[in-house]
Amino acid sequence: MSVMIDTAQAAKRAASDLGIASTDAKNTVLNALADRIDTESDTIVRANQRDLDAATQTGITGPKLKRLTLSGDAIGQMADGLRQIAALPDPIGQVTREYDVPSGLRVRRVRCPIGVIMMIYEARPNVTIDAFALCFKAGNACILKGGREAQRSNEALAAIAHDCLRDHDLATASLALLTTSDRNDIRTLLGLDAFIDLVIPRGGTELIRFVHEHSRIPMVQHFHGVCHIFVDRDADVARALDICVTAKTSAPATCNAAEAVLVHEDIADGFIPQLVQRLQSEGVEVRGDEAVCRRARQVVPATSDDWGTEFLDLIMAVRVVSDLDAAIEHVQQFGSNHTDAIITENTATAATFTSRIQSSCTIVNASTRFNDGFQLGLGAEIGISTSKIHAYGPMGLEELTTQRFVVVGDGQFR
Amino acid sequence: MSVMIDTAQAAKRAASDLGIASTDAKNTVLNALADRIDTESDTIVRANQRDLDAATQTGITGPKLKRLTLSGDAIGQMADGLRQIAALPDPIGQVTREYDVPSGLRVRRVRCPIGVIMMIYEARPNVTIDAFALCFKAGNACILKGGREAQRSNEALAAIAHDCLRDHDLATASLALLTTSDRNDIRTLLGLDAFIDLVIPRGGTELIRFVHEHSRIPMVQHFHGVCHIFVDRDADVARALDICVTAKTSAPATCNAAEAVLVHEDIADGFIPQLVQRLQSEGVEVRGDEAVCRRARQVVPATSDDWGTEFLDLIMAVRVVSDLDAAIEHVQQFGSNHTDAIITENTATAATFTSRIQSSCTIVNASTRFNDGFQLGLGAEIGISTSKIHAYGPMGLEELTTQRFVVVGDGQFR
Repeated sequence: MSVMIDTAQAAKRAASDLGIASTDAKNTVLNALADRIDTESDTIVRANQRDLDAATQTGITGPKLKRLTLSGDAIGQMADGLRQIAALPDPIGQVTREYDVPSGLRVRRVRCPIGVIMMIYEARPNVTIDAFALCFKAGNACILKGGREAQRSNEALAAIAHDCLRDHDLATASLALLTTSDRNDIRTLLGLDAFIDLVIPRGGTELIRFVHEHSRIPMVQHFHGVCHIFVDRDADVARALDICVTAKTSAPATCNAAEAVLVHEDIADGFIPQLVQRLQSEGVEVRGDEAVCRRARQVVPATSDDWGTEFLDLIMAVRVVSDLDAAIEHVQQFGSNHTDAIITENTATAATFTSRIQSSCTIVNASTRFNDGFQLGLGAEIGISTSKIHAYGPMGLEELTTQRFVVVGDGQFR
Repeated sequence: MSVMIDTAQAAKRAASDLGIASTDAKNTVLNALADRIDTESDTIVRANQRDLDAATQTGITGPKLKRLTLSGDAIGQMADGLRQIAALPDPIGQVTREYDVPSGLRVRRVRCPIGVIMMIYEARPNVTIDAFALCFKAGNACILKGGREAQRSNEALAAIAHDCLRDHDLATASLALLTTSDRNDIRTLLGLDAFIDLVIPRGGTELIRFVHEHSRIPMVQHFHGVCHIFVDRDADVARALDICVTAKTSAPATCNAAEAVLVHEDIADGFIPQLVQRLQSEGVEVRGDEAVCRRARQVVPATSDDWGTEFLDLIMAVRVVSDLDAAIEHVQQFGSNHTDAIITENTATAATFTSRIQSSCTIVNASTRFNDGFQLGLGAEIGISTSKIHAYGPMGLEELTTQRFVVVGDGQFR
């Protein structure tokens, strides 16, 4: 327990130095880290292989195993990601507004770091480097708790980051990687609101609930993505097919993958058989309501549990809806405020959908997988917030800062 | 308990209507409410008088009694405040950014309501109307829990607001005023994160701690203001005196009133006697360290408890510090991240102070009392956040909203 308190206190101290570190100093560390990750790629792959072996032994397979894998390519991408973050403008010290008020005061709003950010996430080891790099560039120290399955990979990555910090005279406490799996330790940390300013749990129901119950620290949750695509009667069918299929198959274990397709009744006869055939030919198990089962072969009848479920796998739920209202109602009932898309050539229908569905991202005529900090022009992201407070949607550098007021007068009193 | 659940559910339903209410509809209600408050001023004063009588009987006096008082003037200001909020631009639907990304997607960030906001505050009854009006204009329903001492005043105000909502076919659940003082009821509400999106506790340590411990709902706290003024050796002494004295006396029970003055040793001999004399002539009790007691008369020797205390009364702590660093250290140790000011003609000294002190508002050569939404050009405020998450400093209309992404493509998939 006292180890946890020490960790949090050290992070707080590191944060006050990072908060005033120069842009050059921060970018130098990020670029050095990119180079080291490239050079030590073999070490990282070996550590990852030990994680993969252990995971295979415990029966992890498919997309979940893939999510844990750090190939040489993935490591190269991690290094490139660091260079990209180094190249992004430094948000700290940016004056977002500057104006005079009638009393003669000059008011500035200035971006500043949040302080210490704790993040709890699941299997993907590349998150360790992404999260550190974004927190660091935004002047924050971070305390990271990755998935147990990725522990060896995470430790290898953190060791390299610590070397780089040390080489540049910055506190290694700028990045604390927790090695404990004891929930009591995590609970201790979640009580330390004097030292930790924000906690970001990124994962499934159980993790979010645990943090919810035990945290005294403000939380921005990156909860699951139960993402929907509504194929309207005015959809371009060829587009709809490409979008629905790739939104499931390109990365089924990510939070912005689509889980359910809702099809307008008026086009169901023509569309459903094509959709089901395309999905099945890509290895996707289709779970359909009665109206879908009637129109296509080898569809698994959907149970009520299939609506609102994040499968994280090659499974897709498909349902026929009577109209736009029914589609909106379904999304409002079963969605998770993450990402919902409509495929339609009708501008008015699209506008109704995007104004009535207030998910963190609503998309017209493109895949749900574009709800991603990089794809939406934020440069990079630490994850996708499904909280409405502080940040909603992809969190990039700016979303890891806050703003304060700096006011200059010439003797005003009241 | 089930009454609380009903309240929260009704607020959630009201919020989904308010979220799409037109700007005109919202402004009409706000202006009608302003007129009704003017017309029914006598009713409000009578209700308030019953609160004041009860408060006097329980021994409440001084600034605290004043804070509870709704004079005819204060009621007129409340009505004017409503008209000002009606005149402010509607944040909802505002497109804060719009750009294309390389994939060809058009990305918009759009302001949207948070949903249901619960606010728990203490004695001042005008907060009831301000909080409702700001939440309402920003498309949010609100659940308000005011101080028990102001209950009759709050009920009179809420009754008028409900009449106005009803007259304009809007749900009265848009404003729920809690009449319970049972902490178990508040605990029940604080667990209802399915219906309530944000809780804002505005008050002292005990309240903040209670909400902290029991809330599953995201919180932005409006904690106390332990505001400091540092009078540097390069200060304009006449300015410094006006600022220090009024920052305490003009409204001693507000969170942006100054609690402590730190005086640079180099000017202490000349400045301290003048400051103490001016403060005492305005009825302020001065509590000083040894260096202050030595230089002025009738100073109460400060105890360690006096540093870091929000007096909310005509009491001011005064201390001599050796230099800028010592002043910064004192503020970092005893401040509350609310408002801290420096009086100096030296630009470099001011810059060091405002960069190293990262309170929600740092002020050069003006009173701490300018940290206020209206004074800083936000139009109005619901309070001053001392949380770094979501909003830091005065919270106006914009800070009661969030932003979501609306993306339009032409068939992009990945």
